[in-house]
Amino acid sequence: MTTTTRVPDLYPSRVADEPRLGDRRDPVLHGEATGALTRYQRDAYQADGFLALSGFFPEEEVRAFQREAERLRASTGLRDREDVITEPESDEIRSIFNIHRTSEVFDRVARDPRILAKVQEVLGGDVYIFQSRVNYKPGFRGKEFYWHSDFETWHVEDGMPRMRAVSCSIALTPNFAHNGPLMLVPGSQHFFLSCVGETPEDHYKESLKRQEYGVPDPEGLEKLIELGGGIRVPTGPAGSLTMFDCNTMHGSASNITPFPRTNLFIVYNSVDNTLGEPFSGQRPRPEFIANRTDEAPLAAAG
Amino acid sequence: MTTTTRVPDLYPSRVADEPRLGDRRDPVLHGEATGALTRYQRDAYQADGFLALSGFFPEEEVRAFQREAERLRASTGLRDREDVITEPESDEIRSIFNIHRTSEVFDRVARDPRILAKVQEVLGGDVYIFQSRVNYKPGFRGKEFYWHSDFETWHVEDGMPRMRAVSCSIALTPNFAHNGPLMLVPGSQHFFLSCVGETPEDHYKESLKRQEYGVPDPEGLEKLIELGGGIRVPTGPAGSLTMFDCNTMHGSASNITPFPRTNLFIVYNSVDNTLGEPFSGQRPRPEFIANRTDEAPLAAAG
Repeated sequence: MTTTTRVPDLYPSRVADEPRLGDRRDPVLHGEATGALTRYQRDAYQADGFLALSGFFPEEEVRAFQREAERLRASTGLRDREDVITEPESDEIRSIFNIHRTSEVFDRVARDPRILAKVQEVLGGDVYIFQSRVNYKPGFRGKEFYWHSDFETWHVEDGMPRMRAVSCSIALTPNFAHNGPLMLVPGSQHFFLSCVGETPEDHYKESLKRQEYGVPDPEGLEKLIELGGGIRVPTGPAGSLTMFDCNTMHGSASNITPFPRTNLFIVYNSVDNTLGEPFSGQRPRPEFIANRTDEAPLAAAG
Repeated sequence: MTTTTRVPDLYPSRVADEPRLGDRRDPVLHGEATGALTRYQRDAYQADGFLALSGFFPEEEVRAFQREAERLRASTGLRDREDVITEPESDEIRSIFNIHRTSEVFDRVARDPRILAKVQEVLGGDVYIFQSRVNYKPGFRGKEFYWHSDFETWHVEDGMPRMRAVSCSIALTPNFAHNGPLMLVPGSQHFFLSCVGETPEDHYKESLKRQEYGVPDPEGLEKLIELGGGIRVPTGPAGSLTMFDCNTMHGSASNITPFPRTNLFIVYNSVDNTLGEPFSGQRPRPEFIANRTDEAPLAAAG
């Protein structure tokens, strides 16, 4: 006779009628110092839940990334793939998921030894790629992306048990204060703000374009911004790297400037934090959003 | 026998199939130095098409303005008035027009001697109020306002003949880079970018909520930003004043931060530039948007 052991839900969300602001029950820094991060970088990551490294990649490397992103965006045949998301009101590509499987260039970036060592230090050991994508936020009509904790969604909709994942965003265009850049709430990673409302089936199809569930309440957001350090907006040239904790509250405003915002986005998860059943009780989201089949420790590119 | 003399249309727009970038045919500074503006301020206004005076009103005065804005917003009965505009997806007040007629406090601000003297210097003599309003841009869900030249609309839809008007925006909340602040294209006032497409009748009812006509084309915008000095975003505390030319290209992104953005907006027009028939050939917009009946020279508050 087999019994099903269910992982306890340490972060219930979308179950109660009222939002609740609780404490994080996992470390922010899971590993000891390995030398990949400086002492200051460890302290800043612990305090803020993110680390912004302006101009991380030199110009020449960035140009190669930009060419690759443009090549992919222009390539016919991609548009109809399930892992390619278009803008709600046009046919323009907004995101290409599974980018480390689609592009050799970006597979190497995802396994860049300098990035990987930092991520391994934060997560305390081996990691795998939970999700990867290129996001194209066009100029003039770039849509906003409302505040959210990635972990809230990954927990409820994908069954990620603990807060032990890191996102890396690599800017392929300059981030100004005015072209809809990533905004983060420093310190918000220390709390878990549960959301209200049940998740409808196949929610992901809509949520990749517009969010309606897993949305934090205004009072909770205000409280987080008050408890934390306000709102921070890392700016910098193409090639800048922002590493952030899976639970750091973030979002971005619309972009009406002519300056597009393109970034490479890679989510690393600890091999000790692989996905279970979604805590919503619903069927798992597709593989391209939440990798369940390739959880082997990632090796650095040679 | 009477003949109708039509004012020549120096700035045709929404008539051709292609947008066109032409030159301004009016001065930016219409008046000689009177001492109201410093030498630097004159030069900056001529160059940029705007002047940002951070913290123009002292805190105590600003608090009185803020109380007045909140009182008006909360007052029942205003919501159904024609000159009060609500958000597209809620009943929240977005703008109260005719504010200098509705509020004694704001009437005095509109006739503030320091502001009036600056405006008179720029416009070269007596002025009247063409339009006035308070704008409430809420936190979390504040909508974007796409790029536009006010003059383009005032010319086509209201029959304003020449570029001889100045807008003053007085911040009643702090302007950060991240809460959907006013963005301007310095130098854009020197050009006239005509727009494509005819204006539908009663366009104003929709345009106050969402713009579809009088929208500059992407290539023209890029050219303006290249010819001018990029994009500038004045930030500052509540009480900051931004004066800008009627033809300076401007817009604002959405506001997902909890920090609302409220401002008092007053448009001064030269008494030598009063409205004629709309150049669109259509019926004039209502009085609360484009004042035609009270064109007497404005007197400074005592």
